[in-house]
Amino acid sequence: MSYQPGRHFLQIPGPTNTPLPVLAAIAKPTIDHRGPEFGKLGLEVLSGIKTIFKTESPVVIYPASGTGAWEAALVNTLSPGDRILMVETGWFSTLWSRMAKKLGLEAEVIPGDWRHGVDAAVIGAKLAEDKAKAIKAVCVVHNETSTGVTSGVAAVRKAIDQAGHPALLLVDTISSLGSIDYRHDEWGVDVTVGGSQKGLMLPPGLSFNAVSDKARAAAKAATLPRSFFDWEEMIAINGKGYFPYTPSTNLLQGLKVAIEMLHAEGLDNVFARHDRAAEATRRCVRHWGFEIQCANAAEYSSALTAVRLPEGHSADALRATILERSNMSLGNGLGPLADKVFRIGHLGDFHELMVTGVLTGVEMGLAACGIPHKPGGVQAAMDYLGGNAARMAQAAE
Amino acid sequence: MSYQPGRHFLQIPGPTNTPLPVLAAIAKPTIDHRGPEFGKLGLEVLSGIKTIFKTESPVVIYPASGTGAWEAALVNTLSPGDRILMVETGWFSTLWSRMAKKLGLEAEVIPGDWRHGVDAAVIGAKLAEDKAKAIKAVCVVHNETSTGVTSGVAAVRKAIDQAGHPALLLVDTISSLGSIDYRHDEWGVDVTVGGSQKGLMLPPGLSFNAVSDKARAAAKAATLPRSFFDWEEMIAINGKGYFPYTPSTNLLQGLKVAIEMLHAEGLDNVFARHDRAAEATRRCVRHWGFEIQCANAAEYSSALTAVRLPEGHSADALRATILERSNMSLGNGLGPLADKVFRIGHLGDFHELMVTGVLTGVEMGLAACGIPHKPGGVQAAMDYLGGNAARMAQAAE
Amino acid sequence: MSYQPGRHFLQIPGPTNTPLPVLAAIAKPTIDHRGPEFGKLGLEVLSGIKTIFKTESPVVIYPASGTGAWEAALVNTLSPGDRILMVETGWFSTLWSRMAKKLGLEAEVIPGDWRHGVDAAVIGAKLAEDKAKAIKAVCVVHNETSTGVTSGVAAVRKAIDQAGHPALLLVDTISSLGSIDYRHDEWGVDVTVGGSQKGLMLPPGLSFNAVSDKARAAAKAATLPRSFFDWEEMIAINGKGYFPYTPSTNLLQGLKVAIEMLHAEGLDNVFARHDRAAEATRRCVRHWGFEIQCANAAEYSSALTAVRLPEGHSADALRATILERSNMSLGNGLGPLADKVFRIGHLGDFHELMVTGVLTGVEMGLAACGIPHKPGGVQAAMDYLGGNAARMAQAAE
Amino acid sequence: MSYQPGRHFLQIPGPTNTPLPVLAAIAKPTIDHRGPEFGKLGLEVLSGIKTIFKTESPVVIYPASGTGAWEAALVNTLSPGDRILMVETGWFSTLWSRMAKKLGLEAEVIPGDWRHGVDAAVIGAKLAEDKAKAIKAVCVVHNETSTGVTSGVAAVRKAIDQAGHPALLLVDTISSLGSIDYRHDEWGVDVTVGGSQKGLMLPPGLSFNAVSDKARAAAKAATLPRSFFDWEEMIAINGKGYFPYTPSTNLLQGLKVAIEMLHAEGLDNVFARHDRAAEATRRCVRHWGFEIQCANAAEYSSALTAVRLPEGHSADALRATILERSNMSLGNGLGPLADKVFRIGHLGDFHELMVTGVLTGVEMGLAACGIPHKPGGVQAAMDYLGGNAARMAQAAE
Repeated sequence: MSYQPGRHFLQIPGPTNTPLPVLAAIAKPTIDHRGPEFGKLGLEVLSGIKTIFKTESPVVIYPASGTGAWEAALVNTLSPGDRILMVETGWFSTLWSRMAKKLGLEAEVIPGDWRHGVDAAVIGAKLAEDKAKAIKAVCVVHNETSTGVTSGVAAVRKAIDQAGHPALLLVDTISSLGSIDYRHDEWGVDVTVGGSQKGLMLPPGLSFNAVSDKARAAAKAATLPRSFFDWEEMIAINGKGYFPYTPSTNLLQGLKVAIEMLHAEGLDNVFARHDRAAEATRRCVRHWGFEIQCANAAEYSSALTAVRLPEGHSADALRATILERSNMSLGNGLGPLADKVFRIGHLGDFHELMVTGVLTGVEMGLAACGIPHKPGGVQAAMDYLGGNAARMAQAAE
Repeated sequence: MSYQPGRHFLQIPGPTNTPLPVLAAIAKPTIDHRGPEFGKLGLEVLSGIKTIFKTESPVVIYPASGTGAWEAALVNTLSPGDRILMVETGWFSTLWSRMAKKLGLEAEVIPGDWRHGVDAAVIGAKLAEDKAKAIKAVCVVHNETSTGVTSGVAAVRKAIDQAGHPALLLVDTISSLGSIDYRHDEWGVDVTVGGSQKGLMLPPGLSFNAVSDKARAAAKAATLPRSFFDWEEMIAINGKGYFPYTPSTNLLQGLKVAIEMLHAEGLDNVFARHDRAAEATRRCVRHWGFEIQCANAAEYSSALTAVRLPEGHSADALRATILERSNMSLGNGLGPLADKVFRIGHLGDFHELMVTGVLTGVEMGLAACGIPHKPGGVQAAMDYLGGNAARMAQAAE
Repeated sequence: MSYQPGRHFLQIPGPTNTPLPVLAAIAKPTIDHRGPEFGKLGLEVLSGIKTIFKTESPVVIYPASGTGAWEAALVNTLSPGDRILMVETGWFSTLWSRMAKKLGLEAEVIPGDWRHGVDAAVIGAKLAEDKAKAIKAVCVVHNETSTGVTSGVAAVRKAIDQAGHPALLLVDTISSLGSIDYRHDEWGVDVTVGGSQKGLMLPPGLSFNAVSDKARAAAKAATLPRSFFDWEEMIAINGKGYFPYTPSTNLLQGLKVAIEMLHAEGLDNVFARHDRAAEATRRCVRHWGFEIQCANAAEYSSALTAVRLPEGHSADALRATILERSNMSLGNGLGPLADKVFRIGHLGDFHELMVTGVLTGVEMGLAACGIPHKPGGVQAAMDYLGGNAARMAQAAE
Repeated sequence: MSYQPGRHFLQIPGPTNTPLPVLAAIAKPTIDHRGPEFGKLGLEVLSGIKTIFKTESPVVIYPASGTGAWEAALVNTLSPGDRILMVETGWFSTLWSRMAKKLGLEAEVIPGDWRHGVDAAVIGAKLAEDKAKAIKAVCVVHNETSTGVTSGVAAVRKAIDQAGHPALLLVDTISSLGSIDYRHDEWGVDVTVGGSQKGLMLPPGLSFNAVSDKARAAAKAATLPRSFFDWEEMIAINGKGYFPYTPSTNLLQGLKVAIEMLHAEGLDNVFARHDRAAEATRRCVRHWGFEIQCANAAEYSSALTAVRLPEGHSADALRATILERSNMSLGNGLGPLADKVFRIGHLGDFHELMVTGVLTGVEMGLAACGIPHKPGGVQAAMDYLGGNAARMAQAAE
């Protein structure tokens, strides 16, 4: 029996630390997915999940991890050879565009520097140029998990509208849903892609497509082959709380509890909690003297912070040291950021004490690795959180 | 708080009753799927699952339920418009052929009466006629879950070989794997499709493709669009125990335990246990005076028994009564068998006492519904199991 | 890894099969037993447990198993050398009288044949003889777990009153509470002893004393040394939901859920369910041709049935066979009943399907051991349960 | 549904944060405490627990919380009116002496200032004066949980021996066992009292008496009434792995895992981990400018640190603030220390990141409550832990 004492701190930007009530719900015995008890559960989660996406439209729940829901968004709405516009915000937007190409789509990727979010103006310009309306969809990542940059989705919608362009808007919210405010209906998104293992605080294994009427209409004409991911069969049978094929019953049991927990806290409180954790983390990082990967303060992610180490220092060696001595997992740098950047996930089921605890682990790791930094970052985080609390206390009076 | 006393008997033919050690493993905290602990887990389950499929070839594990693995088998090996040969053994073979058509394949379906398994001779004849070798694949369901009929896969292989035909052999073992002997390599199968929620005793959410060299070679030429289900990226990164995108970490934790449990009991013991449960069930059913849906004794399924009710009696009403009074779920009749047939799952984690307990529930349900039957079916089952045990005791001396 | 497939059937007359929601509650993290969350939990269980004992008086909850609560009942109310009257109904009443003697009490034990309950008339006569009122307490076991005999407590109360005797009435309900109707207040009991691991469906580790005003008054004068089991310190601090020393926090978390489950079903429904299980079991046993240990039908226990095997057959060998082949534990014969009797527990969290399932296990075990019996006992049980159900359906119209 | 996000930090000095594998073991179904599977478990835990007490003598395991084991130590070895010598080290030693008096013993209590441990010289002097050898036992608390003072048990043994006095040595290790080195045999202790809910990382509900030959001999003559706590019946039946009455089966399932975890880490590593956590905590406390309750550096506890707040500040208000804003429970001041002291538990299942996380919570709480302190305590703790790590790294080379 091997054993490392104490709780593991899973501070990658997802999967996140699953709360025990959710794990307990998942560990309940599997029920008959064709029986009456399941029907009730199905209606409950299908309706509950809409409140998280902030939509009145159907949300399709796949028994598949998030990458599957990316594919679902594409194969339901598009046909072989279709032109789509994608934006390189980092590693995950890149993977999504690679997938589009593998599926036979002609994906034009607007290049990016991995330090900024989506530039809606560029999208607008591209669409304006597209007199033939050949571009069928615009795909953006709301919160780029590889860089900690959150893009303005409403602005993209506005740009599309101002260009008078009929392209669909497809948005990946895998690492923002349930952590950062997101509004499928209000922002006019056609397909929102989500996953279970981040802000929803579940293990990986479920993923989502929130689907607008316009997207469903497009699906009727779309000819990319699809079966497992096909929306219509799902939506039809979902009306009674069931699924066309075996769903991930146990994860759905957990999803019910996770949605209840989010609403018990209040979504706005959830988002504010993430905002504070993120700001505390950034103040700490800046105090240490490190650069934050996100170069635009208006686009800081509240779900994670990617930290750039000074030249000549290995982020992966730092992470390995921290894993070994502090039993904490941090996210690695991806693609061109490999070994240059590490990522601190501050999303899901946590509170301020976990934020400061995490930062002590990083600060001790920096010392252990001999990476030059100005000590006292944790103090800066505590000062902010304390001051914040004091202000909140005043405000409440 | 609603509450129905006692354990639920989940006797649908899958998902099955998940053993508590497996549920406990699933309820352990999610770990970093890029970290060293996961790497060890990954290697362990990727190697362990091969022993269940009885193959030396790679087994791809999808974070998706079984229907996804059906799609994976098709999109990796075939191209739009390809001809394939499928066999109608029941509801699930029909669903698979519908999927093939949705994906743009030209599926020729050999019709069946839903009471027999695959006729290898007919397959052989079809292939012999196909001088142009246009048929790219033969698809059969090993254990048809809608009817309780198990087909001979080795015979199909032989028929293909005798026809000297290069078609791939694709086999669905979703409801047989881990319950009924299956041999991917020995039987020369090219793609075996499996799922987690039956004989593997896990909740739904994982599925499998065991993949022969020939299938991998075919995949290189196959042009159906694929990304999520693509084998090669999976197999490449699986070598180190990792996955190209987020896997269903918690279910993999459970899979490790489930495989250990199967080997602790011994696969042959597992199969023998299923055989005895099935024979006891059939003796009971016959005693009641009912017909077994499977018309060929050589093809009886050891995983489930589909029972035909006499004309004029509703199988669904019987199931509803049993669910309410005995807290037991049975499988419904599917497609043309709706309301005519009910299915008793006797697979997964169970022992003889659960078999007889289940049969008492059915016999009491028959009485409660006024369905004419000869009482004493449970006794017949007990006599068989007892005699069987006595013989086993003698043999052990 | 050793592994026996399927669910274990724990059919000893306690500990019983703990329901999964109770196990889940016990597995929640321990909370601060001095903090506000615990205070709420404490008040909830302290008030809830009274509804199970049917009392308005305090119920003391010990972090100790049932034997501790026996001792508590004695040391709180009695002084060294005190005379008490006990009744030999079986093994557990005998153990309790041995304990009384070890504690320095002068226990007069009314002898019994282990096949009948308490004879209230004999108690009345003994008390009537006791002109000096030297007898300080009468101690009876409500449901004798070794024999399956339930005694009439109200009759004992009446006999004491009719004798005009001030003796306290102490009653052990360890194996009846939550399974068989019991009324601490209405029956005028002074101390009721209970345990967690039977009808309350918890693991062992908690035990109870429900305490009348008269008992508390007696405690003031009682001089047996006591500290851990002392009532008054408990009752004082229980008022705010706390305990004088560390309680069994996690079992209390489970107790909360168990009480909720009992009330969700309704106590009367719980008792009726036990009655039906017991009657079905007895019909089965009689069909086999065996004697029931309880010789008086008015005193049959609804919690367990002790079955006498014909001379020359070993009950322990039968139990060992059943454990090995059917993964089911049955209760052994105790004291003079060793190897002559086996006990079937039909209490706690179960339904009729578990009852018949259990009986199939016994019937197959009898066959396997070559113990002569008339086959068809399970059928007799099913006939009763079915008829019973039909009558219930008629009654509900 | 009420919900407070994130993990609760249970930093009272016990019960401690139970590791998930232990909770999972406790949540396994209860097994038959008279069956063969239990026998194996019983032998395993009865033999395993000896390695934690470092004894070859029997360790009795009670299904009762720690206070019960205190009583067991007294009632097994002593007779009414016996003189015993106890030492006031704090709240728990005081409670133990109160218990002794309630049980009818004549307990002489050597007074203390609650800031120092046991003075062996005073004990030696008392015994030397006792020419009649009337003192039957010396009772000391190894780690006084109310003050964070650890007494030298070996020195007490030596003092008794030097006085040539036959008194038994009874030691309470409830909050030290499994956290601080303890040696029942080597230190010549006669009865060691332990509990499950601190260093053993279990919920409360089990307690222990490690018993020397001399103690067992004394028990033969001791006349305090006892039954539930009687050693001999326990020890007799423990030989086969069973217990005379129903044990706390599920907690024993957890105990097996907890013992395995302690040995997997290595007891010396466990102790060193506690030492480092304690030293880090003290450096932090001193940096803040607060006094540590333990006035003698040689007696600092490695399991908890009691911190004195400056006059005029409420420790209870601080604890309430920290509970509310940081979801962390700290220990309160007991008896005369009420509201003047708070206690940080740094024992059980934790690692350095939890220590620093805990300290950030305290430091933010101090700020929120306006309690004057020098910020930077957490930094001092991190510097120590980092330096320590660096030194350990050097040493390993």
